[in-house]
Amino acid sequence: MPFAPNGLVTLTTDFGGTEPFVGIVKARILQHCPAARLVDLLHDCPAGRADLAGFWLAHAWHEFPPGSVHLAVVDPGVGTARGVMLARANGQLLLGPDNGLLAEALRGVSGASWLSMDPDLPERLALGPLSRTFHGRDLFAPLAGLLASGQLAPEAFGSPAEPADPQPLPAPRVQADKIRGEIVLVDRFGNLVSNIDAALLADLPQPVIHAGSHVLSLAGTYGEAPIGVPLALVNAFDLLEIAINGGHAARALGLGAGMAVEVRDGLAA
Amino acid sequence: MPFAPNGLVTLTTDFGGTEPFVGIVKARILQHCPAARLVDLLHDCPAGRADLAGFWLAHAWHEFPPGSVHLAVVDPGVGTARGVMLARANGQLLLGPDNGLLAEALRGVSGASWLSMDPDLPERLALGPLSRTFHGRDLFAPLAGLLASGQLAPEAFGSPAEPADPQPLPAPRVQADKIRGEIVLVDRFGNLVSNIDAALLADLPQPVIHAGSHVLSLAGTYGEAPIGVPLALVNAFDLLEIAINGGHAARALGLGAGMAVEVRDGLAA
Amino acid sequence: MPFAPNGLVTLTTDFGGTEPFVGIVKARILQHCPAARLVDLLHDCPAGRADLAGFWLAHAWHEFPPGSVHLAVVDPGVGTARGVMLARANGQLLLGPDNGLLAEALRGVSGASWLSMDPDLPERLALGPLSRTFHGRDLFAPLAGLLASGQLAPEAFGSPAEPADPQPLPAPRVQADKIRGEIVLVDRFGNLVSNIDAALLADLPQPVIHAGSHVLSLAGTYGEAPIGVPLALVNAFDLLEIAINGGHAARALGLGAGMAVEVRDGLAA
Repeated sequence: MPFAPNGLVTLTTDFGGTEPFVGIVKARILQHCPAARLVDLLHDCPAGRADLAGFWLAHAWHEFPPGSVHLAVVDPGVGTARGVMLARANGQLLLGPDNGLLAEALRGVSGASWLSMDPDLPERLALGPLSRTFHGRDLFAPLAGLLASGQLAPEAFGSPAEPADPQPLPAPRVQADKIRGEIVLVDRFGNLVSNIDAALLADLPQPVIHAGSHVLSLAGTYGEAPIGVPLALVNAFDLLEIAINGGHAARALGLGAGMAVEVRDGLAA
Repeated sequence: MPFAPNGLVTLTTDFGGTEPFVGIVKARILQHCPAARLVDLLHDCPAGRADLAGFWLAHAWHEFPPGSVHLAVVDPGVGTARGVMLARANGQLLLGPDNGLLAEALRGVSGASWLSMDPDLPERLALGPLSRTFHGRDLFAPLAGLLASGQLAPEAFGSPAEPADPQPLPAPRVQADKIRGEIVLVDRFGNLVSNIDAALLADLPQPVIHAGSHVLSLAGTYGEAPIGVPLALVNAFDLLEIAINGGHAARALGLGAGMAVEVRDGLAA
Repeated sequence: MPFAPNGLVTLTTDFGGTEPFVGIVKARILQHCPAARLVDLLHDCPAGRADLAGFWLAHAWHEFPPGSVHLAVVDPGVGTARGVMLARANGQLLLGPDNGLLAEALRGVSGASWLSMDPDLPERLALGPLSRTFHGRDLFAPLAGLLASGQLAPEAFGSPAEPADPQPLPAPRVQADKIRGEIVLVDRFGNLVSNIDAALLADLPQPVIHAGSHVLSLAGTYGEAPIGVPLALVNAFDLLEIAINGGHAARALGLGAGMAVEVRDGLAA
């Protein structure tokens, strides 16, 4: 699908809200695309965690219509030789540093194509002086604005290339009668989100979830368990999640990001 | 007043900012109403506190013009049999789960009318598969978008009904010569907001405020007391509030949400 | 440059996100300027720190095009006799309480002009009753909306005046062979931002940075030092900053806001 910009630009960063970094990036986008419609996706990503930013962007970008531009700047390598990537998928664009963020966002997406930025592009576009610590403002925002306004065609961005770090987050391992995954993150409600996709569970007739010393069975939603009782469920992103109805599962169960989650077949136990 | 959508959609949730839940909801609204103008009201509501979300929505929704749609999703009962409500007041719409949120938001509003969602509506509108844990995305956002774009008329939403939990927050008790209320919440500045409306104070010639071991008189604004000195005042939402000029009253006074506040008549003491 | 509004209104406050104060301010702006395009700059400013709000606004407002209105409300003196100021610079407007915020935002800007609000203006504009604790809603938002919609010309705002507190943040002192500054703030990444401008460094052939017991040399960007190693650099706002590659400098080095930073000439040491 060719890219026909619709003016929507989403933002995914680790800039938080205690400084006006996001607002400054928006100003620069608007300089190059006054009609841009800006949608914040994520700004409170843990500092430098490009993998987690990619994880969440994966679950958000496809909700937007063709013609959208997704700008993602979690960029601990800012000012070093790290590259800049543009990905194209389903008529949408994803723009960010070449550090695994966009690769995670497009994990498993078929038909995505990648371009690595031509090093001369900023000069060719007369983007002006480039700071060494805030490419979100000086490089990524103008590029996003020029792409969203149609002034820069994706084809003129650079050359085909593969992303540097294609799978920053660990994949679950499927073994005979069990799946070994891990907790990717704890969300704001204290729910523990794993990397185990619902499709993998389908092979186990009676899945039983083991995490730390806890053994849980699958429920349909939070409210199915009594208040305070832990449960496992397939969440709205089709991932196995551990929760407590009305409570904070991570604190109550002593579980956290990076810990193992195993799904075994209850019939085989 | 009939409902004529103006494209404004406000959002009140407990989704916070550490995950892109709000952005995903906005994407789904924009799918159904590309011209929507989105205004964030509240996303850092304490998890699951539908009553507090309703409290704040009560002080915000009437600031918007007729034709606005207010989407409110604090929904601990997501995926259970809880209903979905649409309220109409002053030519505006409020949409959310039937858990007291909207009832609190419309407490004391005359002329509000309520509709309970027809269970067949999602299917009739072809909203697609409904997850059991994220109705903000799968149900509420499309409904808000369809209402805001005029594709769904409020009349087609469901049948007249009363909200399930009409008064989630406690009301103050007025006794002879005193008013007994409580602290509803501590705001970001450390100010203690009570449930005592200014109108109730008018009956006491010389109101004196008792909270914990503290006895305070009424001031007009924060800066009337010296720095560090506690005071009580009628805040901008016409509620009795306890504050410290230049300080964090909750910490300094050892007071918090749920604690009693009593207003007595100083002349009678 | 005369002021020709472009509909852009930015917001800088200490209202945070745990209450809908920002959304309520936006509602009032939209009442007076339905076509306003709203951009959040900063809402998580530490409570009451008008100086820090001004510091960040200084680094953001000039990114916007002529015709923009910048509304800044960090207002611990709300309801007292503090004035209201409108500043004009580069065809843009800055509006806020007269407490040093706007003066810090325009520090060193040549050609800025100041107007103090005519005390009769709110009545003349029929803004309605003014609470004593939330002028962001009752006074500043309507004024911003009227300015952004062109209904209120800057010339009609008030009389020329100088801001009350022209330099709320301390300026660095330049001495023979050294510069004495201080840490202004710790940003979300733990980086320590000083008040020492890059231009001052140019006079020292070999600048060496002293802060607490730490001695640091100048690097170009974060990634130039190995992970975990502290460094100093000129940040994207042309200010001297102390950071740790991949770490939180404030915590790791035991440094914080208000502490001294000294730049000496290494050759002279």
